[in-house]
Amino acid sequence: MFKEPKEQLEMIKKGTHSIIDEGELLKKLNRSHNEQQPLIIKLGLDPSAPDIHLGHAVVLRKIKQMQDLGHHAIILIGDFTGRIGDPTGKAKGRSALSDEKVKENAKTYYEQIFKVLDQEKTTVRFNSEWLSKMTFEDVMKLAATSSVTRMLERDDFQKRYKNNISIGIQEFFYPLIQAHDSVELKADIELGGTDQTFNVLMGRTLQNQLGLEKQIAIFMPLLEGLDGVEKMSKSLKNYIGVNEEAEVMFKKVMEVPDKLIVKYFELATDEHPKEIEKIQNRIALGENPRDIKLELAEIITALYCGEKKMDEAKQYFQTAFQKKLIPSNIPTILVEIGQEKIADIIPLLIKNQFVKSKSEFLRLVKQEGVSFNSSKLTEDDLDRVIMNNDVLQIGKKRFIRFEK
Amino acid sequence: MFKEPKEQLEMIKKGTHSIIDEGELLKKLNRSHNEQQPLIIKLGLDPSAPDIHLGHAVVLRKIKQMQDLGHHAIILIGDFTGRIGDPTGKAKGRSALSDEKVKENAKTYYEQIFKVLDQEKTTVRFNSEWLSKMTFEDVMKLAATSSVTRMLERDDFQKRYKNNISIGIQEFFYPLIQAHDSVELKADIELGGTDQTFNVLMGRTLQNQLGLEKQIAIFMPLLEGLDGVEKMSKSLKNYIGVNEEAEVMFKKVMEVPDKLIVKYFELATDEHPKEIEKIQNRIALGENPRDIKLELAEIITALYCGEKKMDEAKQYFQTAFQKKLIPSNIPTILVEIGQEKIADIIPLLIKNQFVKSKSEFLRLVKQEGVSFNSSKLTEDDLDRVIMNNDVLQIGKKRFIRFEK
Repeated sequence: MFKEPKEQLEMIKKGTHSIIDEGELLKKLNRSHNEQQPLIIKLGLDPSAPDIHLGHAVVLRKIKQMQDLGHHAIILIGDFTGRIGDPTGKAKGRSALSDEKVKENAKTYYEQIFKVLDQEKTTVRFNSEWLSKMTFEDVMKLAATSSVTRMLERDDFQKRYKNNISIGIQEFFYPLIQAHDSVELKADIELGGTDQTFNVLMGRTLQNQLGLEKQIAIFMPLLEGLDGVEKMSKSLKNYIGVNEEAEVMFKKVMEVPDKLIVKYFELATDEHPKEIEKIQNRIALGENPRDIKLELAEIITALYCGEKKMDEAKQYFQTAFQKKLIPSNIPTILVEIGQEKIADIIPLLIKNQFVKSKSEFLRLVKQEGVSFNSSKLTEDDLDRVIMNNDVLQIGKKRFIRFEK
Repeated sequence: MFKEPKEQLEMIKKGTHSIIDEGELLKKLNRSHNEQQPLIIKLGLDPSAPDIHLGHAVVLRKIKQMQDLGHHAIILIGDFTGRIGDPTGKAKGRSALSDEKVKENAKTYYEQIFKVLDQEKTTVRFNSEWLSKMTFEDVMKLAATSSVTRMLERDDFQKRYKNNISIGIQEFFYPLIQAHDSVELKADIELGGTDQTFNVLMGRTLQNQLGLEKQIAIFMPLLEGLDGVEKMSKSLKNYIGVNEEAEVMFKKVMEVPDKLIVKYFELATDEHPKEIEKIQNRIALGENPRDIKLELAEIITALYCGEKKMDEAKQYFQTAFQKKLIPSNIPTILVEIGQEKIADIIPLLIKNQFVKSKSEFLRLVKQEGVSFNSSKLTEDDLDRVIMNNDVLQIGKKRFIRFEK
């Protein structure tokens, strides 16, 4: 059932930022292989941000790859942690969530994470299960496993302490709870972004203090968004959501900057390291990045939307952007990408002399005289949200492109 | 029933280090007077140190004075706090106590505190009553009422943090628990030594955050022990225990250094400030401090042992040390006061040429030729523990005095 441990390690290592530590991981893989027992992989999810994008999915994909190798995942919803939030409401970071809100968020989580994970090899747990039973005395025993000095070594705490920005004492419990959860779940491996280093390593410390085998910490790099600079994030609008329509997802992947193509192959697909090596060679040999990106868009869109929808999306993309002749040198308008509808920006079209008046524009739409990404624009389409590089066209000569 | 608030305030202020704040206290006294309702005075006691001496009794006496003014005391035994202790066993400060040990200690507390307090006007509570019911979530809400920066302002935490001496996170909960206890008990006043400043003021902060009337903090000075320098403490052997025999207590008070006479009147008796003023005048006019100390010894011994035993102790003291002629200029031996018995130090007597041999000494005792503090020394007396200034005598000329 299980592949050779060294072969597994090659796949697991793909794209990781760091593994602490690799030797211990190999030991666990050996044991798992000998006993034909899956390793337990833990991932904690914060129930306050239920909209998953490819940036969040980096860790999920890594887990999926390990599930494909035969291992078992536990998705731990931090409902208790979410409920604590910031009880004073002073800090803007976390706010306490109601039980209903947490459950509602968890439901949308399920829908999204199983777009990546293998449901058969996944258990979902909630940490309130054990944390809500803990007494004051239990909490103090947990608190006593660490020290103030150790906590203030965490980057963000240190910065806030030095800059006199208040740290609530309850905040020290987030890493402690995360560590305790690992003990409770007997985690063999915990996944996290590099921003989770302190918290994940605390799990190792606590397990070690209790005489248990230490979990392996696997840290994944943060994935830059479509701007190629900032970490992918909903608020920066540089994201590709796992719930996007195939057409939108395909088009968005085509917007990934060329320099990030390999990174996206590593972090946003399950391709084998050997395949990625081939991609790197092709780029090095001067192949057009656009063609490689087309493959990336196919792979990613198929992962989330299935082959059929991917095919349709690809066809649409090629019809709209590749085969039809849209000149490259056309006027552009800056708009709030992903927010504004076509109907909203008619005044901008007038200002940019694309049409004379609103009534002219609406008349042209009715007469099927306006194209949107090379397809006829209907009245219903006026509600469509504008994405980056969308193009409006009247006749053969009037074009306008939208950019963020 | 209640005296005039200003008159009460005069008595309450006696000997205090500070009151935060006096204006608020007067308001509370006024309300209590108008409504004929006693104020609630809280004192927390740590169940780990059950042997009470006059140093501990400083706060108890202050409470007794307020009870005499009509107010009600709540003695809060920190059994929960004691149980937390230091769960890791790393810090040497506090160690976790078993439930039985806490209860055993509490019993000995009762016996001792009611040597000072008015039992009718005292309620004893244990903080485990409410703390053991708190959930993790409750604990986090409590934690969130303060911040790391605020905690590290506490002198001892600050020093330890700067000197890289580990502070367990659970230690931050001592002040928080103490504050929460005040909320639970609706305390009007909390008493404490000056070393309790941070913790008692945290009670005010928390009450204020919860929209409750703030408790008044009354801080009492630390009482120096018989050496006149160090804080009274059992380990330094400079203490007068509240459970001492009348004879021992009387004699120990007579050992109080002259410069501390007034402070002992202020902190170790319930004398009215006007009486203390008279004492100060008598000292200023050159009266022999020994005579004033004799009054102090009478008052203190009577407070703890009753008038009758005090009378006997006084008579014994005067017989032994004042009326009989023991020359002042006699040889002295340093011994472990309060620890060694007469039988133990015979080798020292030989070394100091008080007797030639053990057999000579025992023979002289049998023949009633040895006096101890001017009384005949019997064979049974060989088991007596030696106290400071005890004197052994053989015939008219051989004397030896014991000192620490």
